[in-house]
Amino acid sequence: MTETGKNKSLRVTFEPSGTVISVTPGTTVKDAANMAGVNITNVCGGTGVCGKCEVIVTGGTVDMQPNTFIDDAGFAQGRALACLSKILTDVSIEIPGESCLDETPKLDEDSAAGTETYAKVECSYPYNPLCRKELLTLPPPSIEDNLSDLDRVKRELEKVGGYPALNAEFHTIHPLAGIIRDNGFETTVTLSYKDNAFEMVRFEGGDTAGINYGMAVDIGTTTIFANLINLANGEICGVSALYNSQMRFGEDVISRIVHTQEHKHGLGTLQRLVADDINDLKDTLAAQCGIDQTDINYIFCTGNTVMIHILLGFALGNIRREPYIPAFGKPPAVRASDIGIKINATGNINFLPGAGAYVGSDITADVLASGMADTDKIGLLIDVGTNGEIVLGNSDWLICCSASAGPAFEGAGTRSGIRATSGAIEKVRIAGDGAVELGIIGGEGTKPGGICGSGYIDLVAELFSAGYVDRTGRFGGKHHDSIRRDGDEPEFVLAEGSDTDSGKDIVISESDIATLIRTKGSIYTAAESLMTHVGLSWNDVDNVYIAGGFGSYLDLKRSITIGLLPDIALEKFRFIGNGSIAGARMALVSLDGYIAAKRIARKMTYFDLSTDPKFMTEYTSSLFLPHTDLEKFPSQRLGH
Amino acid sequence: MTETGKNKSLRVTFEPSGTVISVTPGTTVKDAANMAGVNITNVCGGTGVCGKCEVIVTGGTVDMQPNTFIDDAGFAQGRALACLSKILTDVSIEIPGESCLDETPKLDEDSAAGTETYAKVECSYPYNPLCRKELLTLPPPSIEDNLSDLDRVKRELEKVGGYPALNAEFHTIHPLAGIIRDNGFETTVTLSYKDNAFEMVRFEGGDTAGINYGMAVDIGTTTIFANLINLANGEICGVSALYNSQMRFGEDVISRIVHTQEHKHGLGTLQRLVADDINDLKDTLAAQCGIDQTDINYIFCTGNTVMIHILLGFALGNIRREPYIPAFGKPPAVRASDIGIKINATGNINFLPGAGAYVGSDITADVLASGMADTDKIGLLIDVGTNGEIVLGNSDWLICCSASAGPAFEGAGTRSGIRATSGAIEKVRIAGDGAVELGIIGGEGTKPGGICGSGYIDLVAELFSAGYVDRTGRFGGKHHDSIRRDGDEPEFVLAEGSDTDSGKDIVISESDIATLIRTKGSIYTAAESLMTHVGLSWNDVDNVYIAGGFGSYLDLKRSITIGLLPDIALEKFRFIGNGSIAGARMALVSLDGYIAAKRIARKMTYFDLSTDPKFMTEYTSSLFLPHTDLEKFPSQRLGH
Repeated sequence: MTETGKNKSLRVTFEPSGTVISVTPGTTVKDAANMAGVNITNVCGGTGVCGKCEVIVTGGTVDMQPNTFIDDAGFAQGRALACLSKILTDVSIEIPGESCLDETPKLDEDSAAGTETYAKVECSYPYNPLCRKELLTLPPPSIEDNLSDLDRVKRELEKVGGYPALNAEFHTIHPLAGIIRDNGFETTVTLSYKDNAFEMVRFEGGDTAGINYGMAVDIGTTTIFANLINLANGEICGVSALYNSQMRFGEDVISRIVHTQEHKHGLGTLQRLVADDINDLKDTLAAQCGIDQTDINYIFCTGNTVMIHILLGFALGNIRREPYIPAFGKPPAVRASDIGIKINATGNINFLPGAGAYVGSDITADVLASGMADTDKIGLLIDVGTNGEIVLGNSDWLICCSASAGPAFEGAGTRSGIRATSGAIEKVRIAGDGAVELGIIGGEGTKPGGICGSGYIDLVAELFSAGYVDRTGRFGGKHHDSIRRDGDEPEFVLAEGSDTDSGKDIVISESDIATLIRTKGSIYTAAESLMTHVGLSWNDVDNVYIAGGFGSYLDLKRSITIGLLPDIALEKFRFIGNGSIAGARMALVSLDGYIAAKRIARKMTYFDLSTDPKFMTEYTSSLFLPHTDLEKFPSQRLGH
Repeated sequence: MTETGKNKSLRVTFEPSGTVISVTPGTTVKDAANMAGVNITNVCGGTGVCGKCEVIVTGGTVDMQPNTFIDDAGFAQGRALACLSKILTDVSIEIPGESCLDETPKLDEDSAAGTETYAKVECSYPYNPLCRKELLTLPPPSIEDNLSDLDRVKRELEKVGGYPALNAEFHTIHPLAGIIRDNGFETTVTLSYKDNAFEMVRFEGGDTAGINYGMAVDIGTTTIFANLINLANGEICGVSALYNSQMRFGEDVISRIVHTQEHKHGLGTLQRLVADDINDLKDTLAAQCGIDQTDINYIFCTGNTVMIHILLGFALGNIRREPYIPAFGKPPAVRASDIGIKINATGNINFLPGAGAYVGSDITADVLASGMADTDKIGLLIDVGTNGEIVLGNSDWLICCSASAGPAFEGAGTRSGIRATSGAIEKVRIAGDGAVELGIIGGEGTKPGGICGSGYIDLVAELFSAGYVDRTGRFGGKHHDSIRRDGDEPEFVLAEGSDTDSGKDIVISESDIATLIRTKGSIYTAAESLMTHVGLSWNDVDNVYIAGGFGSYLDLKRSITIGLLPDIALEKFRFIGNGSIAGARMALVSLDGYIAAKRIARKMTYFDLSTDPKFMTEYTSSLFLPHTDLEKFPSQRLGH
């Protein structure tokens, strides 16, 4: 090596991929991995808080900042946190399985709910998609009927579809004269909805009306889902999903915002990542269904406010700062090509409005998909993700709020938490004799890797119901062989390291239980506050809609046991699965659905919980199992 | 010279400019001049028919095709037609004054009618321009009032100006968050009308509402007029005009169409020429008024159908071929930058619709400016240019036609015809004793260069009234010293070569009179046919509007004498000057005016004269002075 000092270049080799990259001394392992395009789990945005980016230094030297996750002994064995470790020499870095970001999330009954391929999109509104093709057979012009080419098309569109005079960009009109004359005055015109009206975006010769595809895309902070829909008949022809590539910059939206604020080109980087993710999904779906990307004429996209701002390249600072102001409510429709998404050159990408910085278009889509705004019955919708978003109302009124629940149900912030991916413990039963039975995603033979949200709910409910944990969430009531102490803190061991994928014990500690209680308390209290705010009680609620990827795994009884869900009749609960993509599909295939969704967003009042003087008291009362006030959980009172 | 044969390069020097260009042998002098950017008058599009492109070969050799304009003797003296002469050696070419295209047309009372600088635009509709700036002082957001930035702007626009929710391109919205926060939540938003609605196109910090300019542009086949208008107060701040640079490819629209059909990049060439002309006018006006081009936010443009198709880059073939179908009726509004016009990057250029291939937006503008569609009185509008366009009707109905009058009144197709430019004989009086008095544009001391349209009307009327010419347009009735024979054909000499600018005699021949009679007959018969078609007679007409650059020079009495205009009371005639730019100004400063104009175009029925079985008979009857049927010209019957 001929370079010296700060400017010399160090060689970093990542295993098992074998990827090599050169960096300057002092670069963190995490930054090096990002530059190399190597995915390392990163929940906290690289602040050393989550401990999820553990790597093994198999050669060379790094300098790691002190932290609570890896002690000197562990560091001596080569363990290190990628975000806190600076590279000092040429190094080899091994990324263990549990620190790898999976490339592809599984499409289980949750994420693909309602997306059975070749089924029609479920939609309670008339089928009239936002992108249509109309075959026009124009009467040839004559001296007596000498309308211009464009007006001839408009007249026929009025006749065929009752369309009022539609606009078109001049570039779109350029080839029209040639196309109609080369094809016996037969042309297929593509109509694409933008902002408030259809626009003519493409003229083709002859009949191509059967070739018209659209995509519904749900940009989740963690996962991006996409459906390919045949707009000629409303059938779903393909479903696909992948993890949001922005995850390497942190798992929650705040980490993403921070990244754009601390890196000059951060926003551009995140924008390109999400655009490329959508392009990847599009490529997958097009290949699956044997179509060309130019056959895709429209994308309908939902997502939280931060995800949509990033996709459209809008700065995020004001969303993070009080009073939390987004740039727009309804994101403007744009040409997909303007934001780097490669479908037909004339393809638009359109969006639903959200109700605020923390209640985005994904929630509008949830409400649309639930149908709660189509009935006079009172509905309560709960979407549990990194935050819990809650909507209350009916066809007359809607009020919503966002509970800063934290990501405990998403596998972050707890010792053994992981996402609902292969190896996750999703189900726990503790028998009367103390025998523990685990349900693991991936089925028999899969080694457990950690506990996901539904697993935690089961686990806390079972520990509580069986009397191992008391109403405050503390161990000590009843003995169990699996309860042990780690230092001062008691914990319950679900699986020994010898039986697990990572070789580490899978446990739930008292602090984990406290975190989970804060999370469930936050969601419950938020819902209750909305209700109190409008003068209703739980008895007035006719339907409770559970949305979100986490949704249909939820064990209702046990969720009520821990006080996450209100103690009302089980038949009032409805699982709507991924309401965000279901709503995107409905808007894509139905102008009426799209208009209904815009009406929903306009109607939805955002209630900022921080302005509710009673919220903190109520929240504090909720930090028990199931609640301080057992009057609110009558079935639990009887049960104990 | 080292090259040989076809590929050798020849040097062409043009005088008096001194411009030099290299061409291959066989290139015509006209093509060489076009390549060099040297303007040579070219009326017929380079087909050898008009004889207006005469040049003098002062050195070297050209090969000229035989023609009727230059004989062997003339050719031996160096005279040649540029379009028919192929360059064989290095040559020097002198372009005489009469073959030069003037660079700048004069802005006389006609072309600038109503355009007195710093006068308000004359407009009978409310002042509400198509491009406005609104200063908004937004209430800063708070937790309680947490609308998005864009929705905050929309709410204020609704409050301030009653605007419904307006759209904006996402690029326009990008800087909004920063702009309002850097300027105490004060922003000036530019609203620009596109297609059917205002659009937000620009956000500026603070108060810039006073800086907002627009241009009204009339693209004539011959002359392009432009007005700069202060949209903050509706005042005209500058007027300018130049000859359409496409003139080097022929003076009428057919020549331009032919050029685009015969040259691969012909359409692109013509498009760039007109865009550059508009840019030149814009530069002149911006300099005149001391503003920057970025202060110009909107252009409103009128012109005939061919000119607008060229400006927007649309192919012209179908306009020329029966059934004469344009690509569009209402040209789509476009970003000026999309067609190479350099004003503010967000500036739109908008248009009026026309009624057909040969009745374009200039005529819609004429009707708007005349006010004939605002009254129940019957109006007849005549716009005499290369073609004569005629509109008949009132606020309830409108019918229009185009008379293929030919360019005789525009200075083409006759021996001594020139445009109404300096040196043109515009007025002729013949006294009882035969003394001839000439009125020349440019005033005393200006040598005559030829006869323009109004001069010809005077001349034919005077020759006829004094008895030198009979009702068939032939000489011979009465002797005059200035009547002589050129070969077989009698002609009347207005000025001897010794007294003229070009050194050539200025004459009117019997064929010239025949041409003029065909032109006036065509216009008169067209107007009469419209009237007969709707069952009216001349007595039913309340107002006759004379539009077009040629308009206000017209001597009404003499126009009636030759049978160009109908023989009705002189007080029924109104000169509206250049109605095309007057209409463009009205639409620019008034949304109501713009909407009225679109209604006018929708209402205007195009009547194709070729489908009228009586037209040819009536036309033939009109080929007399004033007409075969003197019942139609009672005042003339009494006069004789």
